Amino acid sequence: MDIKISKVRLLDGRTVDIAIEGDRISDLCGDVPGNADIEIDGSKFIAMPGLVNCHTHAAMSLFRGYGDDMPLDKWLQERIWPAEAKLTADDIYWGAKFACLEMIMSGTTTFSDMYFHSERTAQAASDAGMRALINEGYIDLGDPDKREVGKKETLESLEKIKAIGDPQVQPALGPHAPYTVSKEGWEFMCGLAKEQDLLVHFHLGETAQNIEDVKGQSGMKPVEFLNSVGVFEDRCTAAHGVHFDDEEIKLLAQKGVNIIHNPESNMKLGVGSKLRYRELKAAGVNICLGTDGSASNNGLDMFTSMKFAALLSKMDGYPEAMPALEAVELATVNGAKALGIDAGVLEIGKLADIILLDKASLCFHPGFDHISDVVYAADGSCVDTVIIGGKIVMQGRHVDWAEECISKMTECSQKFRS
Amino acid sequence: MDIKISKVRLLDGRTVDIAIEGDRISDLCGDVPGNADIEIDGSKFIAMPGLVNCHTHAAMSLFRGYGDDMPLDKWLQERIWPAEAKLTADDIYWGAKFACLEMIMSGTTTFSDMYFHSERTAQAASDAGMRALINEGYIDLGDPDKREVGKKETLESLEKIKAIGDPQVQPALGPHAPYTVSKEGWEFMCGLAKEQDLLVHFHLGETAQNIEDVKGQSGMKPVEFLNSVGVFEDRCTAAHGVHFDDEEIKLLAQKGVNIIHNPESNMKLGVGSKLRYRELKAAGVNICLGTDGSASNNGLDMFTSMKFAALLSKMDGYPEAMPALEAVELATVNGAKALGIDAGVLEIGKLADIILLDKASLCFHPGFDHISDVVYAADGSCVDTVIIGGKIVMQGRHVDWAEECISKMTECSQKFRS
Repeated sequence: MDIKISKVRLLDGRTVDIAIEGDRISDLCGDVPGNADIEIDGSKFIAMPGLVNCHTHAAMSLFRGYGDDMPLDKWLQERIWPAEAKLTADDIYWGAKFACLEMIMSGTTTFSDMYFHSERTAQAASDAGMRALINEGYIDLGDPDKREVGKKETLESLEKIKAIGDPQVQPALGPHAPYTVSKEGWEFMCGLAKEQDLLVHFHLGETAQNIEDVKGQSGMKPVEFLNSVGVFEDRCTAAHGVHFDDEEIKLLAQKGVNIIHNPESNMKLGVGSKLRYRELKAAGVNICLGTDGSASNNGLDMFTSMKFAALLSKMDGYPEAMPALEAVELATVNGAKALGIDAGVLEIGKLADIILLDKASLCFHPGFDHISDVVYAADGSCVDTVIIGGKIVMQGRHVDWAEECISKMTECSQKFRS
Repeated sequence: MDIKISKVRLLDGRTVDIAIEGDRISDLCGDVPGNADIEIDGSKFIAMPGLVNCHTHAAMSLFRGYGDDMPLDKWLQERIWPAEAKLTADDIYWGAKFACLEMIMSGTTTFSDMYFHSERTAQAASDAGMRALINEGYIDLGDPDKREVGKKETLESLEKIKAIGDPQVQPALGPHAPYTVSKEGWEFMCGLAKEQDLLVHFHLGETAQNIEDVKGQSGMKPVEFLNSVGVFEDRCTAAHGVHFDDEEIKLLAQKGVNIIHNPESNMKLGVGSKLRYRELKAAGVNICLGTDGSASNNGLDMFTSMKFAALLSKMDGYPEAMPALEAVELATVNGAKALGIDAGVLEIGKLADIILLDKASLCFHPGFDHISDVVYAADGSCVDTVIIGGKIVMQGRHVDWAEECISKMTECSQKFRS
């Protein structure tokens, strides 16, 4: 046995021992016999599955607080795009590595990322010991030249990420959105997805304008358009998803499309609507959770995102809409399912992606219901220990490489100071 | 000079020395000469005014996670009221003291509380070194017997809180709401408020049902009813305030009523609407911020509340609605103004209610805009040091009496375990 966590509390109130061998949970019961190479006294902790952040642009941690309180267009055109034009591959490595640090320190063990120079984000995730699906954002705007460049970048990204050779860090596909990628672009992605069994990760229905743009381009609603290009036959995750009508929700459910809820980003950018959680749930859609990038949230704490998701679902008069347990499921098992990862629950045989929460944190007092406390009272600072694939990446809130990472990322950000 | 904080960053980006003498800021400039009894190296910190939580039921920390995801009526009738029936004065002391600990650890220096056995909450606030306005919740439901009991409790509360003899902890008045307090009850409160110059703190426009109840009882809308009983002539704070029409907003502005925004509680209880921030602001209403009690939030972190308030104001398509600086103002200077406290800004002569945020926190990187980082990225765990009225109540996140308080509160909560 490699690691044994003794007498740890689970979210459901049980106290158990958890044994880890290699990258999996090898035993979980009231009393696991024998000793391990590493023994952790679990009596001070609550153990839960590591959080799964299904929609990030990790390197955008470089732009936290660089532009806020602006309409989306102005924010992109005046702040983000000019800054992104100055980004080097090295900046992206340190921005993404910093994001990994922030995710680890707030209990996230897996993330699914879209950005450019994606091989550098993949390297950062691997160096940080995280589990990740990384894609190269693809945009062609219907331009054949852009399409050729984008195809090349996507194919190179797949090879470079595979070449890292880390089983925890895998490539995916990132066609940006129905309004920025042509039919031919989608067909290219669908072909690759089938050929290499890849996740397809895109934006869908984020703003009302997006919907109109797609209708203008294709004569179809975005969900109909994506269905027509065949991408719903692949494993796919759609971020934001706030502007769906009933018909679209029905189709998403039929096709098994995973919807990523990004409550804070949607609210902050004022996209004008919110995820139709009750309707999506009733239709049987798998809903998972993401923070979006730190430029539009402005952080990566999935505990805060759970609270935002739950409260947003209730506010219009439905206090029972998303009970705390469902918010935890969005952030764990639903995300793992969407990304095709054998984790998200603490069970024998599952990947050992486990976080230990400090029971001494004020948020766990008086402690009537750990699930409620995790969703409504906790923030990421309650996380003491993070284990990913059976490896301890943080213990006692200490991460070996934190100091260098913070200093390098801050250095990279200097060029954006006006 | 009692305390000198050297070379500390302010939210606006300036670096200054802050001098404290007695309970006030005695100097604040680039270079304060001389030494102090206590010297704090401010180079590691960002200094900002202590946060002002204008609506709490502090002792309800005892009920965090005791009932969630339920409609308001069911929650009150099946969970909260039966539990409250078992509360002793001692429970209230430890529940409130624990709330003080949680508030201090997340940067709140002042709170305004409504509950019963209010003298025990006041004692807890005083023992914790906090600044507070404490009132005894008053409900008569139009019943003359209840009215006599309530009047007696209110008068006793005023005397007992004054008898504590702590200038930082003052009594206020707590007529619960227009639908639970009779015209005679309000007139009693107005008389007392004028006679003793007291703040009047109540709930207003929390649910649509509240509005209908008041119309049924008085033939008036709640704001009209309160205006008719004269309470708007006093200094008053109205919590929640989500169900106002344009006419009511106009009247609230004319009368200088302070409105307390409780974003998380309103969302979690599904009150069915949200604060009309843009309209209230346009009308010139002073808007401040509160967490509500830990039974309906479920925590007291005003950093999280600032994020909820700002994002909630934007979500319907107004990303510029509440810029980060306004969210900070809600939580500081507007709250101080509402409560009649000479604090809420860091200026010479103001009360020394100051919090120091750890610049090393990940949320302050890369650090383009401290105000944005405080609202959108920080949580209470970034607070290192808390000074209230020139006294250090937390330093290095250490609070002397924390351990005993956590243990006593947990003990008090045992009787509610099923």
